[in-house]
Amino acid sequence: MYPANSAMTTRINKLRALLKAEGLRAFFISHQPNIRYLTGFNAEDSWLLVTARHAVYITDFRYVLEASAGLKGIPVKLYTRSAYATLVELLKKERISRVAIEEQHTSVAQLGALKKALGTSIKLTLVCGIVEKLREIKDEQEISLIKGALRVHEESYRYLRRLVRPGLSELDVCLKLEHFVKSRGCGFSFDPIVASGPNSAYPHAKVTRRTFARNDVVLIDWGIDLNGYKSDLTRMFFLGRISKLIRTVNDTLVVAQQRAALAAQPNVPIAQVDYQARNYLEKHKLAKYFGHALGHGVGLEIHESPRLAASNRALLKPGMVITLEPAVYLPGKFGIRIEDMFLVTVKGARNLSGHIS
Amino acid sequence: MYPANSAMTTRINKLRALLKAEGLRAFFISHQPNIRYLTGFNAEDSWLLVTARHAVYITDFRYVLEASAGLKGIPVKLYTRSAYATLVELLKKERISRVAIEEQHTSVAQLGALKKALGTSIKLTLVCGIVEKLREIKDEQEISLIKGALRVHEESYRYLRRLVRPGLSELDVCLKLEHFVKSRGCGFSFDPIVASGPNSAYPHAKVTRRTFARNDVVLIDWGIDLNGYKSDLTRMFFLGRISKLIRTVNDTLVVAQQRAALAAQPNVPIAQVDYQARNYLEKHKLAKYFGHALGHGVGLEIHESPRLAASNRALLKPGMVITLEPAVYLPGKFGIRIEDMFLVTVKGARNLSGHIS
Repeated sequence: MYPANSAMTTRINKLRALLKAEGLRAFFISHQPNIRYLTGFNAEDSWLLVTARHAVYITDFRYVLEASAGLKGIPVKLYTRSAYATLVELLKKERISRVAIEEQHTSVAQLGALKKALGTSIKLTLVCGIVEKLREIKDEQEISLIKGALRVHEESYRYLRRLVRPGLSELDVCLKLEHFVKSRGCGFSFDPIVASGPNSAYPHAKVTRRTFARNDVVLIDWGIDLNGYKSDLTRMFFLGRISKLIRTVNDTLVVAQQRAALAAQPNVPIAQVDYQARNYLEKHKLAKYFGHALGHGVGLEIHESPRLAASNRALLKPGMVITLEPAVYLPGKFGIRIEDMFLVTVKGARNLSGHIS
Repeated sequence: MYPANSAMTTRINKLRALLKAEGLRAFFISHQPNIRYLTGFNAEDSWLLVTARHAVYITDFRYVLEASAGLKGIPVKLYTRSAYATLVELLKKERISRVAIEEQHTSVAQLGALKKALGTSIKLTLVCGIVEKLREIKDEQEISLIKGALRVHEESYRYLRRLVRPGLSELDVCLKLEHFVKSRGCGFSFDPIVASGPNSAYPHAKVTRRTFARNDVVLIDWGIDLNGYKSDLTRMFFLGRISKLIRTVNDTLVVAQQRAALAAQPNVPIAQVDYQARNYLEKHKLAKYFGHALGHGVGLEIHESPRLAASNRALLKPGMVITLEPAVYLPGKFGIRIEDMFLVTVKGARNLSGHIS
């Protein structure tokens, strides 16, 4: 079901190479998606310590049984009172006097407690996004898992096509979609958005009991979680007559997405991709109704690096899996979002979800 | 549906009194449940700035429409690039040169960005759990909302009683329970645990496709979320013959919970309550199979303060809503957890869920 051990070993070794390059001998990882990426195992309140020689999973009573069974090749250390005390013990055993922690996933309060536990003999180094950087580039196994999530996504889309019609409510459709997805052994990667009529103008609309009317615009944004890997697509349903305004907005967004996709070549600055879509909308006087970023990376997290925003000066790289989701929200009227998932390849961005239509 | 404005005003004023007592003129709140408690409104990536004179909600494009409609009496400030820049602007307008932040809910990376935005003219004070402390003591409206969640919990329990039988799988039951709860306009407060046979020995078991067999022990732990307020109960289902061991463990746990409930008087140290249950299990040589805390506060979060653990020297207070959940997990065999919700009153702990049986 989940990535084999060899993939995990490869990932941990890649991380070790990065740590070595930074002169770091030990990394205490607290962000669960990062730990899941490196071990294949997922729980809460658990940590992974990676040193040049060892990797140790630190967990409590609640998960120790599953962890011991699920983490082949990585020893599991049970902590009772404090994971930090266990960390100190492990570091001292390896005579390591400095440990790196994730500054994005450590609270100021945790930092204080950690410093206290480490005392004066062990120093801290704050690092930002080392594992996230590795996770940006998906390996073959990951791409295949994302495609697996998209297969279920396609099935659920076909189901929605048959289902969505005037008279049903947003809640009705959401519940039926949930049953469809979960009875296939999958989960949602986030609470689905089923937004009809004027509700579709809320970028993150909550599901209501509003009943679909004839000629409604219905925006459905949902994601499948299959073995930890996610999908994320939005599909529009037009229930009857499509007004000229709706058609114009929709067609403009389709082209805006295409422009972005064409720009999404390896080694292109991410800001440039955002610009392509936004600039096209700007030409049609629609950019001011598009207030969020163009997209985001997708993988073990629904929103992960890279963020496709105007401010991101990083470069696209082959192996990145991203959404491109230009949108227009007209308050009180309707909203339309055109969202697909793309894989950046050496030949450009490949639409992974274009066939789901 | 949701707490009226007057309750929100009272809460913000209580917070202001606490801030004043600490000599703090401004508090920049980032933890969403804390913001929801103070405003009634819930989103992501949003902040609440509370000063002696003002309260301002800071959010982005995605939530600004809902926030403006939902936050009566509290102005909404839209941020585009950085909420921190908006914070600085607001503080300067009020000539405030020091702002408090939540150390438990601010990452080390965020602290760095915040310091950069504040520059040298505005100083930071780290505070820990001020709003959480207020939230420990539920007001009438909150207790009534929790009871509302428990009413749906009771309905869903009656439904499970009719439903659970040999031949169904954990996943079957979980999906049906989900449909029952969600079609009533409620959500789950956490992913339900439906753990049968040996799976029940995992404290945080994942739902599998395992089919219930005759004489199985089935542990179901689920929570309702109704307008943000949560419930959390575990119920055991015994499908046929109950072995002597199961009966002994079950009965011992029932008494252990009773001992804890009797001890849960106002102004009693929390550790004492934990001790009562654990000591009773110890006498029956079962304590070593009970590796987690005795319980936790429940409200806008499923796990909130106070934590009912052996290490907690704080005192119980009237108005606290807590779980008491002694459990015994026998690896490879079965697990039993007896979990109810209690309201601490001046007369002692009142079982809010005893009738759900």
